[in-house]
Amino acid sequence: MSTVATTVVTGDKKGRVLLAYSGGLDTSCILVWLIEQGYEVYAFMADVGQEEDFEAAREKALKIGAKKFFLEDLKREFVEELIYPAVQCNAIYEGVYLLGTSLARPVIARGMIEVAEREACDYVSHGCTGKGNDQVRFELAFYGLKPTIKVIAPWRLPEFYDRFPGRSALLEYAAQHGVPVVQTAAKPWSTDENLFHISYEAGILEDPNTTPPADMWKLTASPEHAPNEPEQIVVEFKRGLPTKVTVPGTGAVYTDAVEIFLQLNALARKHGIGRVDIVENRFIGVKSRGCYESPGATILRVAHMDLEGMTLDRNVRALRDQFITIELSRILYNGYFFSPEREFLTAAIPASQRTVNGQVKLKLYKGNCVVEGRSSDEGLYDEKFSSMDEMGGFEPSETTGFISVSAIRLKAWANANVQKGAGGVKRSDVYNPKE
Amino acid sequence: MSTVATTVVTGDKKGRVLLAYSGGLDTSCILVWLIEQGYEVYAFMADVGQEEDFEAAREKALKIGAKKFFLEDLKREFVEELIYPAVQCNAIYEGVYLLGTSLARPVIARGMIEVAEREACDYVSHGCTGKGNDQVRFELAFYGLKPTIKVIAPWRLPEFYDRFPGRSALLEYAAQHGVPVVQTAAKPWSTDENLFHISYEAGILEDPNTTPPADMWKLTASPEHAPNEPEQIVVEFKRGLPTKVTVPGTGAVYTDAVEIFLQLNALARKHGIGRVDIVENRFIGVKSRGCYESPGATILRVAHMDLEGMTLDRNVRALRDQFITIELSRILYNGYFFSPEREFLTAAIPASQRTVNGQVKLKLYKGNCVVEGRSSDEGLYDEKFSSMDEMGGFEPSETTGFISVSAIRLKAWANANVQKGAGGVKRSDVYNPKE
Amino acid sequence: MSTVATTVVTGDKKGRVLLAYSGGLDTSCILVWLIEQGYEVYAFMADVGQEEDFEAAREKALKIGAKKFFLEDLKREFVEELIYPAVQCNAIYEGVYLLGTSLARPVIARGMIEVAEREACDYVSHGCTGKGNDQVRFELAFYGLKPTIKVIAPWRLPEFYDRFPGRSALLEYAAQHGVPVVQTAAKPWSTDENLFHISYEAGILEDPNTTPPADMWKLTASPEHAPNEPEQIVVEFKRGLPTKVTVPGTGAVYTDAVEIFLQLNALARKHGIGRVDIVENRFIGVKSRGCYESPGATILRVAHMDLEGMTLDRNVRALRDQFITIELSRILYNGYFFSPEREFLTAAIPASQRTVNGQVKLKLYKGNCVVEGRSSDEGLYDEKFSSMDEMGGFEPSETTGFISVSAIRLKAWANANVQKGAGGVKRSDVYNPKE
Amino acid sequence: MSTVATTVVTGDKKGRVLLAYSGGLDTSCILVWLIEQGYEVYAFMADVGQEEDFEAAREKALKIGAKKFFLEDLKREFVEELIYPAVQCNAIYEGVYLLGTSLARPVIARGMIEVAEREACDYVSHGCTGKGNDQVRFELAFYGLKPTIKVIAPWRLPEFYDRFPGRSALLEYAAQHGVPVVQTAAKPWSTDENLFHISYEAGILEDPNTTPPADMWKLTASPEHAPNEPEQIVVEFKRGLPTKVTVPGTGAVYTDAVEIFLQLNALARKHGIGRVDIVENRFIGVKSRGCYESPGATILRVAHMDLEGMTLDRNVRALRDQFITIELSRILYNGYFFSPEREFLTAAIPASQRTVNGQVKLKLYKGNCVVEGRSSDEGLYDEKFSSMDEMGGFEPSETTGFISVSAIRLKAWANANVQKGAGGVKRSDVYNPKE
Repeated sequence: MSTVATTVVTGDKKGRVLLAYSGGLDTSCILVWLIEQGYEVYAFMADVGQEEDFEAAREKALKIGAKKFFLEDLKREFVEELIYPAVQCNAIYEGVYLLGTSLARPVIARGMIEVAEREACDYVSHGCTGKGNDQVRFELAFYGLKPTIKVIAPWRLPEFYDRFPGRSALLEYAAQHGVPVVQTAAKPWSTDENLFHISYEAGILEDPNTTPPADMWKLTASPEHAPNEPEQIVVEFKRGLPTKVTVPGTGAVYTDAVEIFLQLNALARKHGIGRVDIVENRFIGVKSRGCYESPGATILRVAHMDLEGMTLDRNVRALRDQFITIELSRILYNGYFFSPEREFLTAAIPASQRTVNGQVKLKLYKGNCVVEGRSSDEGLYDEKFSSMDEMGGFEPSETTGFISVSAIRLKAWANANVQKGAGGVKRSDVYNPKE
Repeated sequence: MSTVATTVVTGDKKGRVLLAYSGGLDTSCILVWLIEQGYEVYAFMADVGQEEDFEAAREKALKIGAKKFFLEDLKREFVEELIYPAVQCNAIYEGVYLLGTSLARPVIARGMIEVAEREACDYVSHGCTGKGNDQVRFELAFYGLKPTIKVIAPWRLPEFYDRFPGRSALLEYAAQHGVPVVQTAAKPWSTDENLFHISYEAGILEDPNTTPPADMWKLTASPEHAPNEPEQIVVEFKRGLPTKVTVPGTGAVYTDAVEIFLQLNALARKHGIGRVDIVENRFIGVKSRGCYESPGATILRVAHMDLEGMTLDRNVRALRDQFITIELSRILYNGYFFSPEREFLTAAIPASQRTVNGQVKLKLYKGNCVVEGRSSDEGLYDEKFSSMDEMGGFEPSETTGFISVSAIRLKAWANANVQKGAGGVKRSDVYNPKE
Repeated sequence: MSTVATTVVTGDKKGRVLLAYSGGLDTSCILVWLIEQGYEVYAFMADVGQEEDFEAAREKALKIGAKKFFLEDLKREFVEELIYPAVQCNAIYEGVYLLGTSLARPVIARGMIEVAEREACDYVSHGCTGKGNDQVRFELAFYGLKPTIKVIAPWRLPEFYDRFPGRSALLEYAAQHGVPVVQTAAKPWSTDENLFHISYEAGILEDPNTTPPADMWKLTASPEHAPNEPEQIVVEFKRGLPTKVTVPGTGAVYTDAVEIFLQLNALARKHGIGRVDIVENRFIGVKSRGCYESPGATILRVAHMDLEGMTLDRNVRALRDQFITIELSRILYNGYFFSPEREFLTAAIPASQRTVNGQVKLKLYKGNCVVEGRSSDEGLYDEKFSSMDEMGGFEPSETTGFISVSAIRLKAWANANVQKGAGGVKRSDVYNPKE
Repeated sequence: MSTVATTVVTGDKKGRVLLAYSGGLDTSCILVWLIEQGYEVYAFMADVGQEEDFEAAREKALKIGAKKFFLEDLKREFVEELIYPAVQCNAIYEGVYLLGTSLARPVIARGMIEVAEREACDYVSHGCTGKGNDQVRFELAFYGLKPTIKVIAPWRLPEFYDRFPGRSALLEYAAQHGVPVVQTAAKPWSTDENLFHISYEAGILEDPNTTPPADMWKLTASPEHAPNEPEQIVVEFKRGLPTKVTVPGTGAVYTDAVEIFLQLNALARKHGIGRVDIVENRFIGVKSRGCYESPGATILRVAHMDLEGMTLDRNVRALRDQFITIELSRILYNGYFFSPEREFLTAAIPASQRTVNGQVKLKLYKGNCVVEGRSSDEGLYDEKFSSMDEMGGFEPSETTGFISVSAIRLKAWANANVQKGAGGVKRSDVYNPKE
């Protein structure tokens, strides 16, 4: 294609760009536009489990001018290095979002920087918008891995975004430059998919009061259409990592890290588990509505948290919840994976999971993931101590001293209040939420 | 009844006790035993919404020797002063337990201390075991309200617990002292019920791998038996407090604080919402298995957290989550309601809820409480800012500077690593969860 | 002066700018340059207690082209609204810096926005560099107060900073445009001064191993040259606010909020108290060396923290330290005073200071501020309880139960370790810091 | 001595006790009393650097009936395993107390349990009072190391404390049982000493307004009597651990872990550094006045914190300060060293100290420890980035985007306020601390 060919010649003058390529309209136009600007372009794709025709993307990239195409299979490292540590610390953002996109970005960025170094690329480039989280996540990861790398973000360059104010401008440009366009109607929302989850945002979802249409959801059955029969599974953990999934009804047993995750996805998908719909706060300070399906991850979260109840010391859990879980979730969401603070916090995870060994029985049913029991050999749960019905472990009379000493501080405070006329039983002492 | 009458005479010598009375076997025996020990006993019951025949309990208490009987209706203050602030700060213990029993104890304790002061009681007494949380919650509340009060906790007195090593000893004592015993078979677990929830623990539940029997659950339908048709509701909040519930399918509208809560209970009960089964960490340091049904509270939690996504500033939410929510939940669980730290933290709640105004649409279906949309006039969510499709609010090019400056620290760190030969793209830099 | 006059005519075309003016070389050149660019310029000065010839600055501003000059005396609101709340929560950044500049910026920014609104200015402008904290603090405050305000920051505009690459270019420009320049040699560092503190940075201080020259320090005597005789003072607080300072040696008593602060400054200055020298982390992520003198504030910090030991409940203090103190200090340092999170956190301060009433005796001596005693009527300190020598308050035997129950969790953990062969007394269990 | 001899015979019947022996009146009487009760007593002393005549104590213990005497030199493990990790994380309790006693207890308790296991002791015993922290620290450590150990705490046994209500009763008992008593007048306060610090409490110090007498302080010169000439030292750290101290004035260089600490003690002692006087909150909830001298530790704290400013990433520092430092200090103070939560938190320390390498110049002068400079090869401080005078590292214009995006959230909030009529420049928006 003459336009492209011409461009490529001049392209070598400005340097070599490794472009995060998706095969879609945006990154295809960016690919051509970069060549037009005088860059040599290599295209990069990461297989993180998304549903994609990688071969078609390869052909398209090379056809429209990419000098080389790289496809990296990052599924295993995504599961083992990103997802499972997140499971170990129950990572969650704003109480609801399981961080599926956030977790994928670091492995993709690392894959890109590896190729960029090996192939002597001067630049990396991506097709993220200028208002979202992913631009930040990619670029902070690039800089954290290779501080000298240069980034081209066309959707933040006025010469690009002024030229392509909407989809029709891109389509026109694609037509002019021989970029094949798949003739499917664009969905009225954007998605990002990987083996952990799919996200939906933008378009009709920008009205936060619009209920997502039933046919939007892709990775899970709706609870209404899920089987009428519950299904039992057992998830086993060692040091907080899922090491075995058993499905008693079928006799199936899974033990490989990736297979466990994919099979939990299949089970949760079948039973309608893992949908959320939230308004979240992006790193740049904008509120945004997002819908997510994270099927297998939802089961793992329920199971892991339950097992921690049985096997993790109370104070370790409380400290981990307040510090590691919350801080690390924010770090991951904001894109600071390759940072000193992330290194610092993850260094503490194994020490918190030494005793998280055991198995959890779960029932899957129409959107519900119900804990039905758990067991462990760790010995931190001791029926003799817990039992209300028998003496054991300690003398009940000892608790009197415990309460008495625990109350010393309260009595001092109550006495001081009484002395100042502020004590006694006044109902108004209790918080009035309407104030 | 002669035995009791005789005892009462001597009872006056030791002083007057206000006993938290339930009408059941334990507190009836305690009542008689206290009289036997030489105390005068007044019986106290709190109506916090539990299913109970209060009149029968009154008759029984007086019959077996109580000099007076007091029934306090604390339902409204329970809802308005305890439950709704907990909703406002999304209180939850160990990620799962909504604190239903913990929230009731302070209003009951305050009701008791009021009566004890008014009626010149020297002691308060209760029938809590010596291994649980409730003894602590009651007594810390007593001392925080009235530091000079004296407490009699028979289940922590060797002269009591050695005399009554099991249920049969109590039954025998009851028979000897003319205490009527209802001839129902005892359930193989203990419960505590109020309008917020019911708890189940002990007995067969002490094996944490035992799945609770289907007939244990009392306050909710099982998801399997819940209606096959979803039902929509709308919950409206003002300053984080639920102020209106609408059920479009029936046209019903509820606006009274207590009625809202009770109706949400009914709706959630019908649709099988609000069951949990956990191993939790009691204040005294023992792990314990508990099952809970908190129907209406579960809906309110989902709705309130969702609305906060739309109406609460990101940083206020993050600070509130990490500090108020976690710390206050722990304080409530451990029974420190009447404490300086609880006063301190609740003083901050209204400032966090000023903007939490709006409404949330929910679908209830077989155990699921699904958010279907939300709206608010607060203006913190701004489609123009969020939109991926249009320019608005700020220039995308500005984000380049934002990312660049945000990366300064990461680049300094990455450069330092490179200088020391520790940088570059090494996969081993990424956390290995198996370490 | 013809150049300026000419410029002013065209200046009205672009709109009106309110410039934060200092009277120095930088902001004088900016003033002229803004006029040159076609703006009408009003000059603004805030009196926050810095040593300054405000009248000379007024004359200079008007002489070089400012259409109006505004001087706002913000000292009292600086002390009462910014400094004293910081004292109440012991605000400190990175363990050392008392936030003197950070605290002044919000009152100055608010003063500016008030004038800008009243005088219908289209822009505000300042002379802060593009690498520091103050640009951020000013502008975030501007936007938080008036989101539609436009800001001109010349030191971040390439057309300005490329034109004035160094001091000599500014001097040349000043000479060309008739800007009077004081013929004192420039100090080899920058300063910012207000009644709270003075800061020193840049220049020779950028080598963090360079000891500041003795003649740099301006607000305090060096400890070596401070009096050989100690001096006693007494500071009284009500609800955590300093309300009285007494100097027994002179009989002086101060009770006005501003006077208290200024007199503590004078006392600390005399005794060489309040110098620090640190490498700190700026908001933009750059490390920076700064030296500070905060004389009176250092005394207040020592006194207030000491009184809290006596009058504040332990758990309130711990929660306040971990959440309010740390978070609010960071918020103040980073310039987020006019933010929802600052509002949220400060709303909690009064609840933490209700009992902080009493007085602290201090000895000032050659850099030391030594606590010599404290007293309070609050009653939370109770000698009877604390005394090691007498029985009182509670029975020592009760502590046995307290320790026993507190150890339940540890015993469960130790038992589990023993069962797994991991327990027992192994020295290697103890943390090896060299790992 | 016949009384003792007789007792020893019966002593074997009840079992063997390892007593933490100090050689003083209290533990000598306890030793005899334990024998009198029928126990066989072994005496244990730990050398943690306190000033003590260990040989005299040995002779006395054996003379009054101990069957064996054990002296363990724990100084090196105290320094290396307890003190230096505390330095690494800047451990401090309630902002003032450096934890000198808290740090010693775990090594002493571990030494005791080792001997108790080796020598087949059934019990351990100590002479701590029933109101203090040390009883808790010892016993929680005992239980965390050996959950089956039994503890005898005479000062919490009514049969002991009722028998010995004061010092004169002890003296009389000592005389009766041939216990030698040193005829020095008792100090009107109690002390605990080790190589880290000395503490003073109780007696005349229980009035918190009493200034400690000048002759109380034992480990440091008073600032008034310290040398008139300052002295310079340089402290070098590797991974946050002190590895070298140089005294340029004398040419002395110290590199051994213990020697470094002891020499810093000597230097600080000479220059009057390390005194504090506070009211603190004991674990049991009682407020208590304590005075402490921690000379060398005070220098190390200043030096280590300063070096972290230069070498530690901002966010790592902030997370470490808020979580590790605060939580670990509380854990140490409260005696939970041998606990899962302490293990968890210390596991994170090395990851926070990887870059804390370099040296700090300090000037010691009359109570002051003044930082005069610091250097490091870590490279996180970069003059080019920090410099206000030169372009370098990044473009100032980029900061505009940074501020603009950082303000998005504030503008949304301010706009919402304006819409609701709550915005604009109202001085009353600013916190009024008098509320």
